[in-house]
Amino acid sequence: MTLLIDETHDPKRTSWVESANGHADFPIQNLPLGVFSTGGGAARGGITIGDSVLAFADLVDAGLLSGEAETAARAGAGATLNPLLALGAAPRRALRRRLSALLASDSAERAAVEPLLRNAADATMHLPTAIGDYTDFYVGIHHATNVGKVFRPDNPLLPNYKHVPIGYHGRASSIRPSGAEVRRPNGQTKAPDADAPVFGPSKRLDYELEMGVWISEGNALGQPIPIGAAADHIAGLSLLNDWSARDLQAWEYQPLGPFLAKNFLTTVSPWIVTAEALAPFRVAQPVRPEGDPRPLPYLWDEADQAEGAFAITLEVALSTAAMRERGLAPHRLSRGPATNMYWTAAQIVTHHASNGCNLNPGDLLGTGTISAPSDDGFGSLLEITRGGKAPISLESGETRTFLQDGDEIALSGRASREGYVSIGFGECRGIITPALA
Amino acid sequence: MTLLIDETHDPKRTSWVESANGHADFPIQNLPLGVFSTGGGAARGGITIGDSVLAFADLVDAGLLSGEAETAARAGAGATLNPLLALGAAPRRALRRRLSALLASDSAERAAVEPLLRNAADATMHLPTAIGDYTDFYVGIHHATNVGKVFRPDNPLLPNYKHVPIGYHGRASSIRPSGAEVRRPNGQTKAPDADAPVFGPSKRLDYELEMGVWISEGNALGQPIPIGAAADHIAGLSLLNDWSARDLQAWEYQPLGPFLAKNFLTTVSPWIVTAEALAPFRVAQPVRPEGDPRPLPYLWDEADQAEGAFAITLEVALSTAAMRERGLAPHRLSRGPATNMYWTAAQIVTHHASNGCNLNPGDLLGTGTISAPSDDGFGSLLEITRGGKAPISLESGETRTFLQDGDEIALSGRASREGYVSIGFGECRGIITPALA
Repeated sequence: MTLLIDETHDPKRTSWVESANGHADFPIQNLPLGVFSTGGGAARGGITIGDSVLAFADLVDAGLLSGEAETAARAGAGATLNPLLALGAAPRRALRRRLSALLASDSAERAAVEPLLRNAADATMHLPTAIGDYTDFYVGIHHATNVGKVFRPDNPLLPNYKHVPIGYHGRASSIRPSGAEVRRPNGQTKAPDADAPVFGPSKRLDYELEMGVWISEGNALGQPIPIGAAADHIAGLSLLNDWSARDLQAWEYQPLGPFLAKNFLTTVSPWIVTAEALAPFRVAQPVRPEGDPRPLPYLWDEADQAEGAFAITLEVALSTAAMRERGLAPHRLSRGPATNMYWTAAQIVTHHASNGCNLNPGDLLGTGTISAPSDDGFGSLLEITRGGKAPISLESGETRTFLQDGDEIALSGRASREGYVSIGFGECRGIITPALA
Repeated sequence: MTLLIDETHDPKRTSWVESANGHADFPIQNLPLGVFSTGGGAARGGITIGDSVLAFADLVDAGLLSGEAETAARAGAGATLNPLLALGAAPRRALRRRLSALLASDSAERAAVEPLLRNAADATMHLPTAIGDYTDFYVGIHHATNVGKVFRPDNPLLPNYKHVPIGYHGRASSIRPSGAEVRRPNGQTKAPDADAPVFGPSKRLDYELEMGVWISEGNALGQPIPIGAAADHIAGLSLLNDWSARDLQAWEYQPLGPFLAKNFLTTVSPWIVTAEALAPFRVAQPVRPEGDPRPLPYLWDEADQAEGAFAITLEVALSTAAMRERGLAPHRLSRGPATNMYWTAAQIVTHHASNGCNLNPGDLLGTGTISAPSDDGFGSLLEITRGGKAPISLESGETRTFLQDGDEIALSGRASREGYVSIGFGECRGIITPALA
């Protein structure tokens, strides 16, 4: 892995796209990748800057690209970014540098690019890739500890936790971009004192604050990805909400893990904030507490430990239908750093492929719920409300243990570091709609 | 669901393709769907009969099809059968009836069809669909009981087993057709008396005898599939080997289920034996033992109970490298009926979609390991050798607890019923190759 900080990260660089300058998420230093449609047209790959989007196909057609940048843009011009991600980091970086130059305040080509911009508010966002497989990990050690405490107060973490980056396969078909409705799932639940289960709407619907890791180049079946090369297989990050029906989960998950409690929907923020854009925000993985085992060599790389974590602050906000109606501001449920991960993104990639399992371009890995150690940084209602025992109070006078119909959860994330312009991830929202009768 | 037994199932019907008459797997009564390439050409959809394959595109080009049958064949003519499966049962059945007529001994069109046949031995088989998602269930109650006994001798089945068709998501990317090499996976294992895990080749590599269920029409996200309609969403069945590294599994699977112990490879027989071909072999689901709970209404349908199981006999054979070298016949590891499933295929489809999870055409569901109650029908070495404690002896003088490099596992299946011509599933084989250093 090589940290490439270049002119695209220059904090003095501004854009002639005026909405980009000072934009919370999408200044010229970001330029995330996504797929959108405008004016009822086909879904096309492109980027966003400020309040605008820009399709790769339009840039190619205008003859504004050449060489590796053009190759990358052509690969990303269609309805999914899989072909672009498959090219790996170098063409993606070449495209980034060219786009940054075209959009910079001192660009000589503003006149050619400006007519190609579309208003982001008019764009319909799609998933950035056709997700072949989705895997969810469990690297949030404080989350794992909080959940484990419910079952094993004295020994919350299982013996494998600090050796194995625990993960399991999720459902790719039900991943949707921010804004998709979150239909409350029906399912089997059984109260502890009941003789038999019942079927009906989940009563303990929750969110989980996660980050999504998008795979760029894949590996052939049978061939592992060495830890030193893992970062090259990561195209970028998004926000991810792993909606969870806790009552379905409690009844179904033994012995093979979560299934219907999770696979009714997963929401992602639709822009891939690239590994290139995140380069300045790479920080050291927190040192393992004394006494923790050193991971096996296949998972251990000094460079990864030195720069494999990300200086990203994550937030979750709740607004109920009543709050929105009354114009009340959303209620912040949590705020905390993404460094609360026991394993790096590179480690989960390497572990996933360590048995020869083949990852493909456009695959998605979830980190698992990222909780801070303190109450104000817990990444799920299960943790915040102590399994529903400690309701939270809202400015509207309402209380919540789990999510009610009409509630909206919005995740946000912001990468910041002294000396650099902060970048964000855009929206990752969903409103709960009533279960089908 | 309507059992459509028609002229294509007539036991007196023979084919002018002489190898089909008396063929163990592929008489004219079968006509399974698959994707193959011949002569280095592109992968194309088609069928097999006897020792031959026949591509849909060639039939279309020759003008031999019309109406619904042509629509179906055009949809299935490409590199995946997903578009054909998406059409549902009626066009698939129309195509079957037309193909059966073209290939029957009394066909007037033999002269037009015969030049289109290719030798199956010269065809390279591919996966029949682009598998969007793969889910593995756990419906083999004797398997679940045998595995559960290891942990809970007095109460082997967990409380949810007879209420919930237990399932979990598997890896779609590493599913391969019969014949693909089975690279022994590396992974983390920890001996019970060891202080720390080690990383290296699995020492307890196993197979699991399963059937695969291919999804035809899907359901929209949020919309369940009623149990009475579930059979219409099933395109057909294959054999499935869920290769499993027991030592990796034991260390990694808590709390989120199997992951790297399974996802290095799954082998399927590449022909989809259609729901239409299997119509005569539908039988009643075995009556639940007295005292077992009645499933919740969303899973219960009298018609499904009356004809939702299949009269299929499954077998597993092992041959070691030494046995093959010496020309010894494979060793039969097990033989038993596919009716040893606690839940029907329709029930697992309905359960999967009961929370609104969207299934897509070409998705694959595994049943889970199908074991008979008696030793000679156990569907894995874990069960046959009592977790490795009771080695099996082979004619070669070798013994086995788990699989060694060079071992080949071959699954086979045969649907039979008095008054009908038996049909089979073709090959589902894999040879273990050594782990990477």
